[in-house]
Amino acid sequence: MTGKKSAAPTPIFLFDLDGTLIDSVYQHVLAWREALDTLGVELSNWKIHRRIGMSGGLIIHAFTRDTGRKLVAAEAEKLQELHGEAYGRRQKEVHLLPGAKELLAGLDKANVRWAIATSGKRDKAQFALDMLGVGANVPVVTRDEVEHAKPAPDLFLAAAKKVGVDLADCVVIGDSVWDLLAARRARALGVGLLSGGYGEDELIQAGAYRVYADPADLLAHLDEIGVRVG
Amino acid sequence: MTGKKSAAPTPIFLFDLDGTLIDSVYQHVLAWREALDTLGVELSNWKIHRRIGMSGGLIIHAFTRDTGRKLVAAEAEKLQELHGEAYGRRQKEVHLLPGAKELLAGLDKANVRWAIATSGKRDKAQFALDMLGVGANVPVVTRDEVEHAKPAPDLFLAAAKKVGVDLADCVVIGDSVWDLLAARRARALGVGLLSGGYGEDELIQAGAYRVYADPADLLAHLDEIGVRVG
Repeated sequence: MTGKKSAAPTPIFLFDLDGTLIDSVYQHVLAWREALDTLGVELSNWKIHRRIGMSGGLIIHAFTRDTGRKLVAAEAEKLQELHGEAYGRRQKEVHLLPGAKELLAGLDKANVRWAIATSGKRDKAQFALDMLGVGANVPVVTRDEVEHAKPAPDLFLAAAKKVGVDLADCVVIGDSVWDLLAARRARALGVGLLSGGYGEDELIQAGAYRVYADPADLLAHLDEIGVRVG
Repeated sequence: MTGKKSAAPTPIFLFDLDGTLIDSVYQHVLAWREALDTLGVELSNWKIHRRIGMSGGLIIHAFTRDTGRKLVAAEAEKLQELHGEAYGRRQKEVHLLPGAKELLAGLDKANVRWAIATSGKRDKAQFALDMLGVGANVPVVTRDEVEHAKPAPDLFLAAAKKVGVDLADCVVIGDSVWDLLAARRARALGVGLLSGGYGEDELIQAGAYRVYADPADLLAHLDEIGVRVG
């Protein structure tokens, strides 16, 4: 269906994972903080927070600009490894966001197709997918499968391709400005959730078509995105 | 000097502590999350984040509204105790915010008086004051010393009283909307810092006169608040 210009009667939902369906952003922040500590790099938590949702590689690139400290390739790799370990230790504290399962079930019930596109790597994503009860039949794209992560549109493009639809017929749901920027680059509608800890205006300024509190709030307002429920 | 109406040629600075001078907000969020987990109360991290800076008692009041679960007095007390323990374990991970010490030293050098007013209790505040190298000569007001914490103006009123000035001659520096609302209730100017993780618009909407990134950024712009430096 590539190149198709029609607006589907019902949009297809492409979900981010961390901060959008699972409540993991604050654990990721402190996991990066712990990793940076190990290498003696000073960076404030709120600045780390604003980078979550990018790929690890881009985060580190942003960190080097923020701190003015150039990391050699081996250090950058070590940092990603340390973050992965530190997050792994915190993963068991992570909860689902309110309404996450119910939202996905509601879309299924309304015959709305959906997929997941995350900047996280497959092993970390699998833990979240298991929490969500997402089966092998659901199209999922992780960092490992694309060349560039958000804010590049690759992850969402790959997800739309897996569903077999044009990205312009999709709605991207995410908690970070990187999701929304990726959506705009791909000409998809972006819907923001506050559940990652960004302020509403930050999401609107990044191009969110609508902003909801969390998955439960989105579920209660699906009609506003063009989904007939019930 | 109570009741004095003059605008001092140079304002007196009243600082919040967590998220304003030390980078502790994200640790507080996960400490509350851990405490709530123990009591089986579900609440998302971003909603906890938006409550940091209130007194523990008010936070719990807000939590009960957010979760719809009424806590009996013994549970509320237990929750505060569990949060205190969980934060205590994370305290060693807490860093100073960039420029915190330099900002306080810069004010001293410019003969600008300043004080600290925190919704935290004395024992937790002391750890931060030691990190900052704040001596016994600096006026500090903690939660234990006033009846109502932020957004009530009591903490800042008590701090101004300790300095011996009128609150209307003070500038309140804080990272949360609760600091800024307390400043407005007390007719003081409020200056917001992004270092607690709120978005800029949230702080401006709460009445911030100016918003800076962190203490280092404020230090670089002290002239905008009416302080002659150097």
